[in-house]
Amino acid sequence: MGSTFGEYFKVTTYGESHGLSVGVIVDGCPPGMQLTEAHIQPQLTRRRPGQSAITTPRDEKDRVEIQSGTENGITLGTPIGLRIMNENQRPKDYGNSTMDMYPRPGHADLTYLLKYGVKASSGGGRSSARETIGRVAAGCIAEKYLEDAFGVEIVAFTSSIGNEYLFPPTPTYPTASTNPEFLSLIDTISRTDVDNHLPVRCPDAEVSKRMEALVAKYRDAQDSIGGTVTCVIRHCPVGLGEPCFDKLEASLAHAMLSIPATKAFEIGSGFGGCQVPGSIHNDAFIKAPPIPPGPNGEAKAKNKPRLTTKTNNSGGIQGGISNGAHIYFTVGFKSPSTIGQPQQTATYGEEDGVLEAKGRHDPCVVPRAIPIVEAMAALVIQDALLAQLARQAARAALPQLKMTLAPRETELGRNPGEGEVNGS
Amino acid sequence: MGSTFGEYFKVTTYGESHGLSVGVIVDGCPPGMQLTEAHIQPQLTRRRPGQSAITTPRDEKDRVEIQSGTENGITLGTPIGLRIMNENQRPKDYGNSTMDMYPRPGHADLTYLLKYGVKASSGGGRSSARETIGRVAAGCIAEKYLEDAFGVEIVAFTSSIGNEYLFPPTPTYPTASTNPEFLSLIDTISRTDVDNHLPVRCPDAEVSKRMEALVAKYRDAQDSIGGTVTCVIRHCPVGLGEPCFDKLEASLAHAMLSIPATKAFEIGSGFGGCQVPGSIHNDAFIKAPPIPPGPNGEAKAKNKPRLTTKTNNSGGIQGGISNGAHIYFTVGFKSPSTIGQPQQTATYGEEDGVLEAKGRHDPCVVPRAIPIVEAMAALVIQDALLAQLARQAARAALPQLKMTLAPRETELGRNPGEGEVNGS
Amino acid sequence: MGSTFGEYFKVTTYGESHGLSVGVIVDGCPPGMQLTEAHIQPQLTRRRPGQSAITTPRDEKDRVEIQSGTENGITLGTPIGLRIMNENQRPKDYGNSTMDMYPRPGHADLTYLLKYGVKASSGGGRSSARETIGRVAAGCIAEKYLEDAFGVEIVAFTSSIGNEYLFPPTPTYPTASTNPEFLSLIDTISRTDVDNHLPVRCPDAEVSKRMEALVAKYRDAQDSIGGTVTCVIRHCPVGLGEPCFDKLEASLAHAMLSIPATKAFEIGSGFGGCQVPGSIHNDAFIKAPPIPPGPNGEAKAKNKPRLTTKTNNSGGIQGGISNGAHIYFTVGFKSPSTIGQPQQTATYGEEDGVLEAKGRHDPCVVPRAIPIVEAMAALVIQDALLAQLARQAARAALPQLKMTLAPRETELGRNPGEGEVNGS
Amino acid sequence: MGSTFGEYFKVTTYGESHGLSVGVIVDGCPPGMQLTEAHIQPQLTRRRPGQSAITTPRDEKDRVEIQSGTENGITLGTPIGLRIMNENQRPKDYGNSTMDMYPRPGHADLTYLLKYGVKASSGGGRSSARETIGRVAAGCIAEKYLEDAFGVEIVAFTSSIGNEYLFPPTPTYPTASTNPEFLSLIDTISRTDVDNHLPVRCPDAEVSKRMEALVAKYRDAQDSIGGTVTCVIRHCPVGLGEPCFDKLEASLAHAMLSIPATKAFEIGSGFGGCQVPGSIHNDAFIKAPPIPPGPNGEAKAKNKPRLTTKTNNSGGIQGGISNGAHIYFTVGFKSPSTIGQPQQTATYGEEDGVLEAKGRHDPCVVPRAIPIVEAMAALVIQDALLAQLARQAARAALPQLKMTLAPRETELGRNPGEGEVNGS
Repeated sequence: MGSTFGEYFKVTTYGESHGLSVGVIVDGCPPGMQLTEAHIQPQLTRRRPGQSAITTPRDEKDRVEIQSGTENGITLGTPIGLRIMNENQRPKDYGNSTMDMYPRPGHADLTYLLKYGVKASSGGGRSSARETIGRVAAGCIAEKYLEDAFGVEIVAFTSSIGNEYLFPPTPTYPTASTNPEFLSLIDTISRTDVDNHLPVRCPDAEVSKRMEALVAKYRDAQDSIGGTVTCVIRHCPVGLGEPCFDKLEASLAHAMLSIPATKAFEIGSGFGGCQVPGSIHNDAFIKAPPIPPGPNGEAKAKNKPRLTTKTNNSGGIQGGISNGAHIYFTVGFKSPSTIGQPQQTATYGEEDGVLEAKGRHDPCVVPRAIPIVEAMAALVIQDALLAQLARQAARAALPQLKMTLAPRETELGRNPGEGEVNGS
Repeated sequence: MGSTFGEYFKVTTYGESHGLSVGVIVDGCPPGMQLTEAHIQPQLTRRRPGQSAITTPRDEKDRVEIQSGTENGITLGTPIGLRIMNENQRPKDYGNSTMDMYPRPGHADLTYLLKYGVKASSGGGRSSARETIGRVAAGCIAEKYLEDAFGVEIVAFTSSIGNEYLFPPTPTYPTASTNPEFLSLIDTISRTDVDNHLPVRCPDAEVSKRMEALVAKYRDAQDSIGGTVTCVIRHCPVGLGEPCFDKLEASLAHAMLSIPATKAFEIGSGFGGCQVPGSIHNDAFIKAPPIPPGPNGEAKAKNKPRLTTKTNNSGGIQGGISNGAHIYFTVGFKSPSTIGQPQQTATYGEEDGVLEAKGRHDPCVVPRAIPIVEAMAALVIQDALLAQLARQAARAALPQLKMTLAPRETELGRNPGEGEVNGS
Repeated sequence: MGSTFGEYFKVTTYGESHGLSVGVIVDGCPPGMQLTEAHIQPQLTRRRPGQSAITTPRDEKDRVEIQSGTENGITLGTPIGLRIMNENQRPKDYGNSTMDMYPRPGHADLTYLLKYGVKASSGGGRSSARETIGRVAAGCIAEKYLEDAFGVEIVAFTSSIGNEYLFPPTPTYPTASTNPEFLSLIDTISRTDVDNHLPVRCPDAEVSKRMEALVAKYRDAQDSIGGTVTCVIRHCPVGLGEPCFDKLEASLAHAMLSIPATKAFEIGSGFGGCQVPGSIHNDAFIKAPPIPPGPNGEAKAKNKPRLTTKTNNSGGIQGGISNGAHIYFTVGFKSPSTIGQPQQTATYGEEDGVLEAKGRHDPCVVPRAIPIVEAMAALVIQDALLAQLARQAARAALPQLKMTLAPRETELGRNPGEGEVNGS
Repeated sequence: MGSTFGEYFKVTTYGESHGLSVGVIVDGCPPGMQLTEAHIQPQLTRRRPGQSAITTPRDEKDRVEIQSGTENGITLGTPIGLRIMNENQRPKDYGNSTMDMYPRPGHADLTYLLKYGVKASSGGGRSSARETIGRVAAGCIAEKYLEDAFGVEIVAFTSSIGNEYLFPPTPTYPTASTNPEFLSLIDTISRTDVDNHLPVRCPDAEVSKRMEALVAKYRDAQDSIGGTVTCVIRHCPVGLGEPCFDKLEASLAHAMLSIPATKAFEIGSGFGGCQVPGSIHNDAFIKAPPIPPGPNGEAKAKNKPRLTTKTNNSGGIQGGISNGAHIYFTVGFKSPSTIGQPQQTATYGEEDGVLEAKGRHDPCVVPRAIPIVEAMAALVIQDALLAQLARQAARAALPQLKMTLAPRETELGRNPGEGEVNGS
């Protein structure tokens, strides 16, 4: 179980590293949208390993093929099947006979065996980076909709590796959410900006260089290192997220912590914000500025609220519901568990011993995680959006009562004027 | 939507502050378990406001009544309906006519209106602390099962308020997960220990005093402050959590970020752990020690794995699946949005103005959040447990194949001996 | 489990006959709709026993109380909690000590015990007529929406009792779907017409009398008898029902067979239609006539398709999707299992013996089942409607492509003109 | 949406006739079970068209390929991806330019267009026989489990075509459930028996011949005819089905009415049983006979209840829960909508005209539907079984209370002795 994500935009994946293929079924994509492989392939390529000296050199091709759900490049509204071949599906590709004796520390080998009672040759089975291909492919479909219909923009970037931070916490700015430089960066950053700073994908030349050096240091020591990814969602429609259990930040946290190797999540001001008093943390309201001209301006404008917030410590979500401001969050990734160093550990048979991994391994997964974070963000927003569109459309079909807002007021994401609201 | 949590142990809540009652239906509770109101009331009382000078003095009684699903104090396996009356359900209890003009900063007033198009007198509707009563009540039922059947223990405590930390990060210990004092504390801490440190519920006399003073300082300034809650789950059965989208930490993150006022979540080493290299972060395996005698010893012993980890940076979860070690995590709560200070903001009608709240307000929600964190943790574990019990029981009914573990090996949570595993 | 129905309009019930109350939580009701207890009580009263000499004389009051989700008689969009007290919740109310020794034939006593391992004093636990109260209450909320927004009308009536049929199959009309009298009846029948034929609720004076006599015959023999209920849904919006697993008729069948004592379901021409060749069974298309004036004319007109079918053997559903014609179906109810006659059977302990039931019992449940059938029909349609509204609204937000219909064409349920369709 | 079936054994399908492939993901298959393509292919072949003169002659190969979820022929517990290529995926294969002008009567062309606003070249899109391939493939996996673990046997057969019935209703036997010949047939019938009566698959030489002649008659008239399929499930574990909304018969009805071209469903005595008084319809209890020796005897015996019923009008389900007796039900299929005769109908543009279909078409789908009915039955039972195994295993882990049954009593499906039950 656990292979389905979303209730309205339902994504179901299959596949281990060593089967014939990995794939995904996307059920609930709106009909009438342009979609071909060309809308999906770029992000699959962005997540491929081997893009630079600091990522793993195995060459996976990851060509996506649409199996169903479109005709003449237009979505039909029926399930979209996607398949990506595994090119290298020999069992035991780690080629290490000690692998059968030892559960690898930090890996899922032992927990998978305890859970399923069957030992797959790939160790952790679904718990491999390859499993994320289906997510990225499905995320592209969600992104295409969000962009075409509402001008939504989702961009993730590396915000720290080890102890090298793009915006280190300071006494003045215990959280980046109060740092004007951070706020300015997320206003405009694009995927091109991010990829201009390969291999680490941290959009600052100097910090990027320090991070690259740090990764190299750990690689040379046959060790590994973690880091964080920050992601911004711009022009998110208002009203998304369900009160109570499915608050928008709860769904984002769920999505992010489901990515392999993640350990932490924070929305808006995050942990640092817990130190900021209410008088500063509260985001006061102001009249919203006009949408600047640019791509998808019309789509963005139809979703422009009348009121926005002066500050944005809440990260674009209040009471679990999007308010139209930028949604931003940070995800923590641990250091990869596969390292070249020998490790003192125990066998399945409870005997002490030393495990040595062979081959070359990725010393830091953070840069490759970026399209995965973007994909999971898109899936969360798309699912919440469809839920809200159902509610809005259902409300709009009712006779208008005096004490409620006209549907168009909220459908377009506009704030109500004083005289229009329920005076009860 | 969004009022249901869990798939196997399904919890559905209803209720605003100003209706007749709040309540919950728990579907999927195993039959044959002892259950009366006495198993639920204590945690409801622990979450009540007004337990000390630093929490809000409104007196809510919160008496729970079981409506269905039990007979003679034993669960029937049918849905358990629980109801808690609202004693004070007059609309507009904030008694502030400016409330109708202003969306409160940091609150859900505006986002609720945008989402639903109807302005409830209580502002944020379901987005109130009162909504959490149903969660806590349902959590008690899950806890009762987990304790009776597997000896599971769940204890949460205040780990920081503002910049006062129980275990501040240091260069030596960038994350508490490598701090021996922290690890020792979570080995033994009980709810009694925690409540011995009322009002802040930080289990250290000295830190507790500093925290209390800090809260008082913000209260006196008509301001508010945030903090963090850390929670440990001991004797969690192995094999819980579903690979891919429903990893155990993903479900925990979802659950925690669904609690009002939360901003961040970390499991195990968390954000600090992203700075720790793989060679240190990897949790090597060792033979597991025996279960010490004590309450529920038998229930705990039947779930004891043969192998455990020397360190526990992963926080008891590997590849999204529990490994039998302590699960621990930390949740960040922002400072409460309702403050006595006047706030410069805008009206629904986009005009600038000053909003002043009346009455007394809770300057820090962290201590009251503790039973809520415990409840949500119990709901996550119980749901994952039922999923895994279904899998185990289904596997145990199959003829045993040579290349798999005997079901009893994993059913009891024991690790396989070398000779027994799949040699493929 | 199994206490939740629907995915978009989610209904969760609790309650046995002998607990404190029965109740329901409705999650997903659109905000901004008028709703008070007065919209719910009439159907609860219609399903009450004791409405005439031929139904059971126990007097249950069944007063519904709204707990949450509305304010000032308007829905907020949040979960609506409803509660109905049990007035008579003493255990063992059948007062028969042999009840503890014998599983009652035709009842759920034995299967409940095998399923749960706990013997409730009420025998079949949730498997009692009282459980249906929550469904009827929830159904009223769905009906209110469907009527206000789309002018939907749902009317059920008794179509047979024992071998007395309103429209008996004949060689000319092997199925009522080809019988003009039947088609004319379902065009106009109202709940008032139905209740004018109490106690059996069969809208024909003569047949009704024969049915009443038949029920009396079985009652006097301390026996019982079954029958069928036919239900029509008029002005159902087009496009409802999901291809593949959740076809609209599949959801209706699921809903109907979940009502206690049901044995069979047929949509449109049903079993009789299996004998009709395709050349007759196929419903050819014609231009749709205008909506006649009358109540909710505007709501109905906005959902009027351009094309309709000359005949209606498909029962308003094609390929699992509603086409705007009347949806009609028939549900079979078995004779009640509780009878006054002594029954030769076996004890829990496998010994032969004779079971005698005491008290008076309902000899035929068909008339009381009518509001339950209507309620479940409303829940199915409402759930499918919200799914389709989400899809339509999502599609309408996309830029219009050349090869697709304009959203308004399908939103209003109108058929496309030739020139407008995809020419691919 | 609507492409997923089941909650515990979750089946998600994709694919239209004219895409690259059709396929399915099965999530929740127990680990440690033998599974190769050889366990799936036979049923796919059984559903292939072209098996005789009376079915459509198009030759589809339908070779299944396992993509994931197994290794060395053993299930891993992870999602099983299956793919079957479409060999003939040219658009517009009906080669009829009038197809673009006319919605085909009885087909889903118009309702699909109204629902999605996009006109696919295949007309009804997912509403084609080809969509059922994924269901059959997934059903084989469920069947394999049910057979290996519990000795479950599922066999469907043609019970009527047009007005030719295997067991026509008579005054003595208004329902087959009281007909000893029927009861004897379902005790022993096998798939081999059924396939010995190709092409119609009605297991009686004489009736079979009459049916074949009837189909030929309609084929020669360029017309089509419907019929019914009856299915028996033997050795179903006791305790399956959830009270209230997910009664076992409700899930079966849902599953069956989701098969294309179905119009009706009855369980046990069905519609005919509504005429049978309670004194006859009630199934009295008797001590259960021993399991006769034969294949899977051990698996069957472990699920043998102590009590069974003398008669079986309830069709093996009481109160929505399986009691261990044979589950049997009948499904009605309408005559196929595609016929060679010209049809008077209207164009999309509301103009009258005549539609003529080209090519050869299947005059009766009943025989091909048999493996589909079997597959959907298996999916329902498997899903309900996993739900019940979760409950049993959860209950078995609790300390045993005095007033409940020992878990083994119900786990093995045995009825309780008198002395053991709750005396409350």
